[in-house]
Amino acid sequence: MRIIQAEDLKDLATGAAVLGTGGGGDPYIGSLMAQQAIRRRGPVKLISVDELADDALVVPAAMMGAPTVMVEKLPQGDELTLAFRKLEAFLGRKIDAVLCAEAGGLNSTTPVVVAAETGLPLVDGDGMGRAFPELQMESFTLHGVQATPMVMTDDKGNSVVLNTVNNRWTERLARAATIEMGGSALIALYAMDGATAKRAVIRGTVGQAIDIGRALREAHTRNQDGVAAVRDHLNAFHLFDGKIVDVSRRTVGGFARGKAELEGLDDFAGQRLTIEFQNEFLVARTPDRVLASTPDLITALDMDEGSPITTESLRFGFRIAVLGIPCDPQWRTPAGLELVGPGYFGYDIPFVPVETLAAQDQAAARS
Amino acid sequence: MRIIQAEDLKDLATGAAVLGTGGGGDPYIGSLMAQQAIRRRGPVKLISVDELADDALVVPAAMMGAPTVMVEKLPQGDELTLAFRKLEAFLGRKIDAVLCAEAGGLNSTTPVVVAAETGLPLVDGDGMGRAFPELQMESFTLHGVQATPMVMTDDKGNSVVLNTVNNRWTERLARAATIEMGGSALIALYAMDGATAKRAVIRGTVGQAIDIGRALREAHTRNQDGVAAVRDHLNAFHLFDGKIVDVSRRTVGGFARGKAELEGLDDFAGQRLTIEFQNEFLVARTPDRVLASTPDLITALDMDEGSPITTESLRFGFRIAVLGIPCDPQWRTPAGLELVGPGYFGYDIPFVPVETLAAQDQAAARS
Repeated sequence: MRIIQAEDLKDLATGAAVLGTGGGGDPYIGSLMAQQAIRRRGPVKLISVDELADDALVVPAAMMGAPTVMVEKLPQGDELTLAFRKLEAFLGRKIDAVLCAEAGGLNSTTPVVVAAETGLPLVDGDGMGRAFPELQMESFTLHGVQATPMVMTDDKGNSVVLNTVNNRWTERLARAATIEMGGSALIALYAMDGATAKRAVIRGTVGQAIDIGRALREAHTRNQDGVAAVRDHLNAFHLFDGKIVDVSRRTVGGFARGKAELEGLDDFAGQRLTIEFQNEFLVARTPDRVLASTPDLITALDMDEGSPITTESLRFGFRIAVLGIPCDPQWRTPAGLELVGPGYFGYDIPFVPVETLAAQDQAAARS
Repeated sequence: MRIIQAEDLKDLATGAAVLGTGGGGDPYIGSLMAQQAIRRRGPVKLISVDELADDALVVPAAMMGAPTVMVEKLPQGDELTLAFRKLEAFLGRKIDAVLCAEAGGLNSTTPVVVAAETGLPLVDGDGMGRAFPELQMESFTLHGVQATPMVMTDDKGNSVVLNTVNNRWTERLARAATIEMGGSALIALYAMDGATAKRAVIRGTVGQAIDIGRALREAHTRNQDGVAAVRDHLNAFHLFDGKIVDVSRRTVGGFARGKAELEGLDDFAGQRLTIEFQNEFLVARTPDRVLASTPDLITALDMDEGSPITTESLRFGFRIAVLGIPCDPQWRTPAGLELVGPGYFGYDIPFVPVETLAAQDQAAARS
């Protein structure tokens, strides 16, 4: 067991934004909310999923919506715990632990707020090992966990309980409700018992996020290269350094979609890169080859600071380093790729692991 | 108390389509469903709202969606009662009677199916005295009844429970879910006690619908004029006879919107009429004056048969009689007009009662 103190929150949010691959909302706002909750309620116990009793009830809490909207419509006070409490009432039994649905900025800190407010422990892990844009994209789905009953609440006092035939239908109905609720909603879903959680949770990602954030912070303290600190901590592949020369963006069906064009800098001078995103970064490619694609993680860092850049904060002129990080192995299975592979997002490219693409690239450079 | 037998269903559906002012879905399909249910389960008791105990629980059951979609996606068997049963389970107490949310084709017969299947009595009355396109447009709203908790179910097995801050929000969230559910959904909502129902229900509209249908059927039996039979039974205003020369129609935001253009026939030769609709007929006007507008009822009948014509069955070449019928008095109050008056639907015209417009018209003709 580890304790999450208020002073860990900035590290957590920074690391979660690295794992969030550009999605999940603004990490700093999320960390402020969680800091407030911990200062008011006390620190949060971070427990291993193995510490759960097999019959314990564990429930993820999250925000749903386009990050651009979430940042503008930040939930206040009890709003964050309301969906969680309502699901508890609907299930008619006490929830024993809080879980992260994804490792993204806001959605890594949202469960910390709920854990602090309820006094429940937070399980160290999540259902993605990164962030993904749709609700069914959870390791929980791969393990047969139903997303429903799911509770959604909004800032006006409306709430919705969904019961669906599968998790894709949950996504469809919840997305429609989220849009109607003004673009973002607070959600509690994927209730599961401890035995299931031990199989289905991607372990250790909350602690990992804190460690990533700490590595970056310590590099800053020592005046070391922030990008290198993050890259080396994660054994990530350094895909590109470049300047953003164009960003196009639109909110479609509740998602922030778009792409960024980069011109190479330093070792990458003369090269170009395109990064496409739907809430999260999905594909990074040069004019002639793919460097990384979903479900592997593509993360953009400020070249000077090493700070993670979310898709909604991408701007012309930003100088960014692009890292590629292997995803959790279960996303590379046929079932995993069906749920979150390039084909699902409409890209007619096969998934090739980022480490294989990097090796091919090095081989080509040598020949 | 009156008994609804299988043989009353065609009359009910026909009369409800007259009161439905073009909306509420196809009356014949609705009557077939209710006939089947009564043949299988036995006749339905139609009770006065005054027969309810003050603490009885009464719940309307209905279908929601664009009629064009409802007709194509007709619910089977238990689907119709599922939302009703789920609301009963959610409320945690037995429902004592079924109520009509509106007097429209499908939505007058839907509660008959639910009453037959559950063995519960049906209250003689509804929340509109006609049909309206949106969920908050109920006399129940005028009497402070909350639409939620509301249950929605679809043909796939998905269900949604809504809890909203007001009935306009219920409409917004339920409409979004209906669209996602494929354009139609089964709903149970506006749960109320008997004491409230006695104040809020527009009384007698189920029996009235059966009587209208019977008047038309008996006119046919006697080879009498069907249009005159309906008109005289309702003391309706005969606004126009004409041939449809143009119909435009589109499904927008889950509604069937459009307008029909008519060229006058017989006494109305040389005149033109435009009828605009959103699921229901909303405004009937000549090039220079309004003849009737919401919340008064505008009903189109086949000129030869007197059969009511729904908005989705309007076709070029149809010869129709257009009747205007005064609405329930509470729709003409300021609160009623705010909910369902011409302004709500975007028409920049004051509401003038159809009887006043008709008197002005006659005065103009005399001068």
